[in-house]
Amino acid sequence: MDFEIANQTALERMTAARPILKAVQPAHEVVPGMKKNLLMHAGPPIEWDRMSGPMRGAIIGAVLYEGLAKDEAAAVELVEAGEVTFSPCHHHRSVGPMAGVTSWSMMVYEVENVTHGNTAFSNLNEGYGKVLRYGAYASEVLEKLRWINETVGPMLAEALAGSDGLDIRALVAEALHMGDEGHNRNKAGSLIFTRLLAPLIAKVAPDGKTESEVLEFLGANALSVLNPVMAACKAMADAAHGVEGSSMVTTMARNGTDFGIRVSGLGDRWFTAPVAQPDGLYFPGYTSEDAGGDIGDSTITETAGIGAFAMAAAPAIVTFIGGNPQDAINATLEMYEITLGEHPSFSIPFLDFRGSPVGIDIRKVVELGVVPRVNTGIAHKEAGVGQVGAGLVRPPMAIFEEALVAFAERYL
Amino acid sequence: MDFEIANQTALERMTAARPILKAVQPAHEVVPGMKKNLLMHAGPPIEWDRMSGPMRGAIIGAVLYEGLAKDEAAAVELVEAGEVTFSPCHHHRSVGPMAGVTSWSMMVYEVENVTHGNTAFSNLNEGYGKVLRYGAYASEVLEKLRWINETVGPMLAEALAGSDGLDIRALVAEALHMGDEGHNRNKAGSLIFTRLLAPLIAKVAPDGKTESEVLEFLGANALSVLNPVMAACKAMADAAHGVEGSSMVTTMARNGTDFGIRVSGLGDRWFTAPVAQPDGLYFPGYTSEDAGGDIGDSTITETAGIGAFAMAAAPAIVTFIGGNPQDAINATLEMYEITLGEHPSFSIPFLDFRGSPVGIDIRKVVELGVVPRVNTGIAHKEAGVGQVGAGLVRPPMAIFEEALVAFAERYL
Repeated sequence: MDFEIANQTALERMTAARPILKAVQPAHEVVPGMKKNLLMHAGPPIEWDRMSGPMRGAIIGAVLYEGLAKDEAAAVELVEAGEVTFSPCHHHRSVGPMAGVTSWSMMVYEVENVTHGNTAFSNLNEGYGKVLRYGAYASEVLEKLRWINETVGPMLAEALAGSDGLDIRALVAEALHMGDEGHNRNKAGSLIFTRLLAPLIAKVAPDGKTESEVLEFLGANALSVLNPVMAACKAMADAAHGVEGSSMVTTMARNGTDFGIRVSGLGDRWFTAPVAQPDGLYFPGYTSEDAGGDIGDSTITETAGIGAFAMAAAPAIVTFIGGNPQDAINATLEMYEITLGEHPSFSIPFLDFRGSPVGIDIRKVVELGVVPRVNTGIAHKEAGVGQVGAGLVRPPMAIFEEALVAFAERYL
Repeated sequence: MDFEIANQTALERMTAARPILKAVQPAHEVVPGMKKNLLMHAGPPIEWDRMSGPMRGAIIGAVLYEGLAKDEAAAVELVEAGEVTFSPCHHHRSVGPMAGVTSWSMMVYEVENVTHGNTAFSNLNEGYGKVLRYGAYASEVLEKLRWINETVGPMLAEALAGSDGLDIRALVAEALHMGDEGHNRNKAGSLIFTRLLAPLIAKVAPDGKTESEVLEFLGANALSVLNPVMAACKAMADAAHGVEGSSMVTTMARNGTDFGIRVSGLGDRWFTAPVAQPDGLYFPGYTSEDAGGDIGDSTITETAGIGAFAMAAAPAIVTFIGGNPQDAINATLEMYEITLGEHPSFSIPFLDFRGSPVGIDIRKVVELGVVPRVNTGIAHKEAGVGQVGAGLVRPPMAIFEEALVAFAERYL
C-alpha cells in the first residue's frame, strides 16, 4: 500500500471538488433518511443523557418547533420516553453549526460538488442573539426560526431556481482575499452571498416590504454564508472520503460533549474523546465560567483547509477571538506542518498568495504532536441562553492517536 | 505662528469629519455654480488646447450627453468656439474619478460632513468597460450613462430618502479590515454599499426587473462606492482647508496634463506641474505605450489617508496594480514619514491596527524627498478608448517645493 499516493488521491479529490449551491428545500424532501421524529445534530453520535446544555436546549427547541410537544416539560418527557431519534448530521450528508439541530420541516441548502457528483446539506443561518443553534428555545427563538424557514427559505429557493447556482468555492476564494477565514469570520463572504442573491431575489419577491426584510436579514448577518460554506466543505470532504490507504481526516465535528474525527481510509468509524473548553473573548457579562464545551460541525471548514487554517488571511478576526495579527499568521504557518498540501483555489495574500494548508494527516499530527487549530463560537453551558463569546480550541490529541492505531491495525 | 498647532488643528478637523451620504440629486440642483454650458473636470484648471486625450474624450461625451451638439465634430466646434466653460470639480465642492467630467443633468452623490456642516459631491460610477470617465464617448457609452443617471440615480435618490443616510467613514473603516484600500480596491466597500442600499431599494423599486438590474449593477461593480468615498474624502479634506499656518495638503488632483495640490494654509492657490505616467499592470493587448498621463480627482483618497496610504490593508491589490504584499506594507510605512498623524477611524489590521497615515505635510515631503504614493487607474492616451490598466504613480516633487516656497513667503 502506497500511503503517499492514497493521500494525494484523497487530497486531489478534496481540492478538485467544486461545490455549487443549487437549491434550498425542506429537509424531509432531500436529506437522506430524514424522518418526522428524527433530529439531526452536530458532531459524533450521542444520546440525550450525555448531551450538553446547549445541545439539549436545541433539541427541546426543535421538538417544540416541529409540534411534537407543546412545552419544555413535554418535550423532555417525549425525549426521555425514547420517542425522538438522534442522528449526526454527518450521517445524512449534512452539517450544522453549533448544536446543528435540523428537523423534518426545516429548510436546507443543497450544495452539489459538480466535479464528483455528491451533494451535501446545511440548515439556514439564524443570525445573532438568542438562536436555536446556541441552545436557546424561547418562543421568540422559534418564531424567528419559523420566519427563516417559511419566509426567507422559500424566497431563497425561488431565487436560486432562477440561477445556475452559486459557486461557493469561488466565493470563499474571493472572501479569503477580503479578510475572511471562512469559519468565524464570514463578513466578506456573506456580503458576496447577499450581493449575488439580491438581484435574484428582486425578481421573485412577493412584495417590497418582505423583500427588504429578507435582504436586510441576509446582509446584516455576517454569518449568512456560513451554512452554505459548511455544506460546500462537507461536499469537498465527502469527495475525499473512502480512499483506501489514506490517513487524511475527512470529518472533524463536536457535539458539545465529544470531539469526533473520521479518516478517509478508515470508513465510517468515529474516533472520539471529550471536548475541550474554547479559549477566547467573551461578550460583556460573561466569562469562561459560562462556557459550554466545544460544539458544532463547523470544523468541517478547517477539515477543508479554511477557518483557523486560513487565519493568516483574516488578521481582523483577532478583535473577535483574541490574539494579535501575528498569531493569525503563525496559526496558518503551523497548520502547514500537519497537512498534505496547499489548496489550489484558496490563497492567502499576505503569505504571497500561498495556498491554504489543507488535508490533515493523522500521521503528521501524532508525529509532530500538533493538533489542528479550530476557530469557534462559544455557547453558554446551560440550555436556553445562547452565544457568550468566540475563540480558539484544539481537538484532543487522543483521537488522532486512536485513529493512528486503527490505521496501523488496518493497513500495517 | 505655531505651525505645529496649526497642523494639528487641520489634522484634527480632517479626521474628526464624519461624512454621511445623504442624497442623490441632479448636479444643477445642488452643485454650487453649475451652469448648462459648464463642464466640471478633474484636477487643477485647464483649457481645451492643453487637455489630454481622455479628458477631451470625456468633454466631447458630456457635450453630446447634454445635447449641446449632435456629433463629435459639432462638439469640438462648440468647444473651440468658446461656448463651453471648463471648471475644476474642486472649485464646486465636487470630485470625479479619472476625467471627472460632470455636467448639468448628471446625478451626483451629496455627502455631508455632519461634524462641521460642509458638503461635497461626486458623480455616479459608471462601472467597467467603455466609460466616459476614461474618455470614451461612443453611443453605447452615453446610453449607459443615461441609464445610470435616469434609472439608477433616481432609485438611489429615493432609497436614500428613506434612510438616515449612510456613514461613509464607518463603511471605509470596515472595508479597510476587508482588504480594501479605498481607492483602487473598493470591492468590500462596494459590497457593503450594495448591502446597505438593497433593503432600501427594495422598498422603492418600481418593478422587480429594474430593481434586479440596478442591484446587479451596483453589486457587480467593485467601484460602486468609489464616488461616494471620494465625496466623503473631499468633505473631510475641505473641513481641514483654510487653517492659517497649516502646511497640510488638502487637495491632490490631476487633469491628465497637470498634477495640482492645494495647501490648507495657502488658500485656493494651485501648485501644478506636468503629470507623470503611471507604472502598473496593463490589460491584455495594452502596454505603457498606450497609457495616458495621470488623471483624476481620486487622489482625494490619499489626501484623506486611504488609497495608497492604506495599501498595507489591501495585500490582494497587488494582483491588480503589480508588486507583492510586502510592497503594500512598505508603501504604508513610507507614508507615515510624510504625514502628520494616524487616522483614528481608519486602522490597518496587519500593522496591529495602527491608524492609517494621514495629513501630508509639504515640509516633510520636501525635507525627506519623499512624495506621496498614489494608486490609480490608467486611461488610454487617446480619446474614446477607455481604461488600459491600473498602477502606481507619484506626483512631481516640484509642486511640493513650489508650495513650500509659497508657504515660506507667506509665513516666514
